Amino acid sequence: MNREQLFEQIRAKRSFLCVGLDTDVRKTPGGMWQFEFNRAIIDATAEFAVAFKPNLAFYEEQGGDGMADFEATCRYIRERYPEILIVADAKRGDIGNTSQMYARAFYEGDLADAVTLAPYMGRDTVDPFLKYEGKWAVILALTSNPSADDFETLKLENGDPLWKEVLRKAKTWGCEPHGQFTNPTNEDRVMFVVGATRAETLKEVRQIVPDHFLLVPGVGAQGGSLEEVARHGMNSRCGLLVNSSRGIIYADSTENFATAAAEEARKMAAEMSALLDRYL
Amino acid sequence: MNREQLFEQIRAKRSFLCVGLDTDVRKTPGGMWQFEFNRAIIDATAEFAVAFKPNLAFYEEQGGDGMADFEATCRYIRERYPEILIVADAKRGDIGNTSQMYARAFYEGDLADAVTLAPYMGRDTVDPFLKYEGKWAVILALTSNPSADDFETLKLENGDPLWKEVLRKAKTWGCEPHGQFTNPTNEDRVMFVVGATRAETLKEVRQIVPDHFLLVPGVGAQGGSLEEVARHGMNSRCGLLVNSSRGIIYADSTENFATAAAEEARKMAAEMSALLDRYL
Repeated sequence: MNREQLFEQIRAKRSFLCVGLDTDVRKTPGGMWQFEFNRAIIDATAEFAVAFKPNLAFYEEQGGDGMADFEATCRYIRERYPEILIVADAKRGDIGNTSQMYARAFYEGDLADAVTLAPYMGRDTVDPFLKYEGKWAVILALTSNPSADDFETLKLENGDPLWKEVLRKAKTWGCEPHGQFTNPTNEDRVMFVVGATRAETLKEVRQIVPDHFLLVPGVGAQGGSLEEVARHGMNSRCGLLVNSSRGIIYADSTENFATAAAEEARKMAAEMSALLDRYL
Repeated sequence: MNREQLFEQIRAKRSFLCVGLDTDVRKTPGGMWQFEFNRAIIDATAEFAVAFKPNLAFYEEQGGDGMADFEATCRYIRERYPEILIVADAKRGDIGNTSQMYARAFYEGDLADAVTLAPYMGRDTVDPFLKYEGKWAVILALTSNPSADDFETLKLENGDPLWKEVLRKAKTWGCEPHGQFTNPTNEDRVMFVVGATRAETLKEVRQIVPDHFLLVPGVGAQGGSLEEVARHGMNSRCGLLVNSSRGIIYADSTENFATAAAEEARKMAAEMSALLDRYL
């Protein structure tokens, strides 16, 4: 799925919501398995969401059963809602030959459309993910967690914080001429993670990457404001995927969870529709 | 396993070798499965190695079968060679509640003793891994890949490269008093990854973390010198785990692979024994 196709879906659904599937078996009603829970969440929220984001840690923690549930979740989305983007939230990042293996793990069986990646080790980490047509590398820039200030916001010699250097370098990756093709930008293959708890800094983000899509966690449970995210971060193709995980999937802890999740997703999509009218 | 126990094993085996199990089914003789191949490598090299390091990407790429082979590999080491450290080379790194799930994935079933972690998102990434007695967080500092210079060696405002700030901050994590306990250092729970291709910088590493263990990749295939690593990096408890993956496990591509792996591991251990005599 390229940028235009993602934008088409956003226009059609009037939503830029990504539903995070951080499915913890300790929190599912009656000890439902992850796939069973996810299927109900997916069916309940698909009309309001343009992306689903399974968080790999929650499946890996359940061993082989969990990984089978992760795969079943991805295949279910593909089969029933083929227009929806699947983001594997895996925060991978390793040297070239290893990174190639991670890319294969997620892309060759077409489990996911996008994988989150940590940039610490540099471009080697990302390159193998840029070789798949229609797939995305989602690179951490400025995250919403408390210790993001340990390193991400450290000032470099030139006075800029590290996260700006990540944006500046990463927006050039995969843009070099190769063979008969030249990709002037990587906007169809690279997104960046920027936390909603830093909405004011989205203005600075947009000075460096005006046209890239941003994956924005931290609205809701972590305190970020959707209105501010849209005001400072939206571009002519929307350019935003705003994620909500716990606020949607655990909106109700009883067997009524799917109805409650649909209601939360519907509310967010309604707010997003108004923001698209105002800022797009 | 704490630092003293690891050092005891190093003294007993006269080796600080870590064998990297980057097992690619495209390279195993006759299409052997990963566990089958690993078992032969483990039996052949265990007398020369103090640690085994399965690289998760290679198992994840094989889906459920691969993950079953990863688990079988860890359980086999536990059963047959309980003294050997198992490092899950996973390069994980996420916010607190997610990081906790990754820690559980590797530690609660006792699959591994140590997990490699990327520090980009800061301390939140590492904290959950520090709560398990006898377990280790292995934090990326200065890696051996070509694009390590993209961010790791960038100079900060104070003139120091980012990797030094990672060492300085991370060596304090988990050292605060809690309850009746005070941990003055985290040397029994934190190691750092420093690539052998930067052996000269090991002197600078040791100025900041004189006593921590370092996991050192990049000897052999990537060109680092074992002698230089020992000269600049060894401390009074050895403080080094030097990893070799491809150089050992693919020393021979035929059915003779295990014998060839044993021979390579034996050679490295012999060199290490001499270096322990010289520098310890």
